[in-house]
Amino acid sequence: MTELFSVLPLIGPLDEEARARAASRLEALTKPPGSLGRLEEIAQRVAAITGASRPRLRRKVIYTLAADHGVASEGVSAYPQEVTAQMVATFLRGRAAINVLARLAGAEVVVVDMGVRRDLPPHPRLVDRKVARGTRNFRREPALTRDEALSALEAGIALVDGADLVATGDMGIANTAAASAITAVMTGRAVAEVTGRGTGIDEEAWRRKVQVIEDALARHRPDPRDGVDVLAKVGGLEIGGLAGVILGAASRRIPVVLDGFVSGAAALVASALAPRVTDYLIAAHRSAEPGHGAALERLGLVPLLDLGMRLGEGTGAALAMLLVDGACRVLDEMATFEEAGVSQRA
Amino acid sequence: MTELFSVLPLIGPLDEEARARAASRLEALTKPPGSLGRLEEIAQRVAAITGASRPRLRRKVIYTLAADHGVASEGVSAYPQEVTAQMVATFLRGRAAINVLARLAGAEVVVVDMGVRRDLPPHPRLVDRKVARGTRNFRREPALTRDEALSALEAGIALVDGADLVATGDMGIANTAAASAITAVMTGRAVAEVTGRGTGIDEEAWRRKVQVIEDALARHRPDPRDGVDVLAKVGGLEIGGLAGVILGAASRRIPVVLDGFVSGAAALVASALAPRVTDYLIAAHRSAEPGHGAALERLGLVPLLDLGMRLGEGTGAALAMLLVDGACRVLDEMATFEEAGVSQRA
Repeated sequence: MTELFSVLPLIGPLDEEARARAASRLEALTKPPGSLGRLEEIAQRVAAITGASRPRLRRKVIYTLAADHGVASEGVSAYPQEVTAQMVATFLRGRAAINVLARLAGAEVVVVDMGVRRDLPPHPRLVDRKVARGTRNFRREPALTRDEALSALEAGIALVDGADLVATGDMGIANTAAASAITAVMTGRAVAEVTGRGTGIDEEAWRRKVQVIEDALARHRPDPRDGVDVLAKVGGLEIGGLAGVILGAASRRIPVVLDGFVSGAAALVASALAPRVTDYLIAAHRSAEPGHGAALERLGLVPLLDLGMRLGEGTGAALAMLLVDGACRVLDEMATFEEAGVSQRA
Repeated sequence: MTELFSVLPLIGPLDEEARARAASRLEALTKPPGSLGRLEEIAQRVAAITGASRPRLRRKVIYTLAADHGVASEGVSAYPQEVTAQMVATFLRGRAAINVLARLAGAEVVVVDMGVRRDLPPHPRLVDRKVARGTRNFRREPALTRDEALSALEAGIALVDGADLVATGDMGIANTAAASAITAVMTGRAVAEVTGRGTGIDEEAWRRKVQVIEDALARHRPDPRDGVDVLAKVGGLEIGGLAGVILGAASRRIPVVLDGFVSGAAALVASALAPRVTDYLIAAHRSAEPGHGAALERLGLVPLLDLGMRLGEGTGAALAMLLVDGACRVLDEMATFEEAGVSQRA
């Protein structure tokens, strides 16, 4: 197991020289300066993260982490809890939305059991990192012990190996309740402001969800300066694992494409542990979940896409990986004015 | 040469039955209903356009049409006019932004000379449809005769053959001046409101550009109800060709991914000729050019991307083609709840 506190100091400042080399190449390419908009910003960011002035994204990996949530017993989700395990099986058969979009993006999907309640049959592509059989109901007791939270973080860190681009994804019935709780703690916003309808609950269930989260925050008083405390008291095992993936990737200078609301909550936990980690993040999209905007604002990220998506799994990140890839290919493959013999500005 | 007025009546209403079949399959797939946001809307739209309830986008073609503009002599662009021909050569060598992004999108780029001023050396991948050696300076005289405008439209219609998804792209120094003129006429907005800095002109050149367009509109008084009149008086040959591509694709029930501001002006011309054509359009992105928003609003389109791009060539459309492809693959490839044995909503 990786030691969390040995990894955090490895998350260093970006390589501003590589960024400058990328920026000056972008100026020399056959297009008006700046005319590719945010693609140019992203290409420069990837250069600064990786230290390569012309980064090539050969291996792209989406980590889709699954776990169950004790708070599901409070009736805060539109779906029964067994759907978490059923969807893991669907991921392994390659028939879920994330599989379809990852194929389009040329990315591998690594499916990880971080804490699904039931035993999952072994499968050659299922990575077993089960820390516990789901969290406890955080309305009544802390979701995780501090040790369990640390185990989830460290398991996530250890998942990351030599990819060129990493993305986060989640599966866990009731996990938007945990994400809303974390977001409320980390941003200081009111619970009702950062709580949405998740998979599609009605007004009554939404009011219950808000109440459950408010009860939990009043009972446990998580400390926003302590990411492990927040994760343990109101988080989840897939959220801890994703915070670990984020930290592990950043410590290896790999850019991370952040999926939607649940991934955003994981990034809030990660950035409480290592504030500089946000430099390594590219926000894929703005989720339809109302709390996501608050999380992105706190992280200082402007998302690439705004398509009203709210599925999770890494689906928004898979699409955004294509944009990041396009940005890096433009930087690497386009001709300069000089190479192409094209006249410069008059 | 295709007869324009024989093609217009072929642009019929969408297939609402195919849309309904796609919508009901989307409801049955293993995801909360509506959770893929605009991807679901786009998948349904492509079904309605093509008449297939599970459309597959095998062959994707980007039409990048090039032409010169007499109005360039008024000093309304940051680049000299010969750049149009030089960029065509760069397209044919596969080293421009559109080539890089089309490779990412798995799309062919069809490069067409609609009216480049100088003779271009023959090339196996260059399609020669030169109607004239650029337009006339529309500050002084109409850009094209009515016959030239019709020839450009009909050449564009004839370019479209059996693709599954078509996108528009443009190259033409000074063509944002023509696009602004068309947009002002078709939307009724003030010229200054729909005129931007194109490839990056300074304040003085911008003021000149606005004045030139205002002079042209005062002199020629194009009739917004007559698309051919607007195209002839203040348009361009690549714009006419693109309006033709749009009409030709719609008449064959092929969805069209519309690139940025210049493509938007072409769509305004096309929709003046066949109002129903807007149903066949998917707006790729919101260009940084200020007139594009007005054009999109007039067309009733909400763009998929907003990345501050303003390059043209079809670059925004290439990226959006990936999203359209993703939408159709989700519809086709995902498992239903029943197939996957996943529990339905509680």
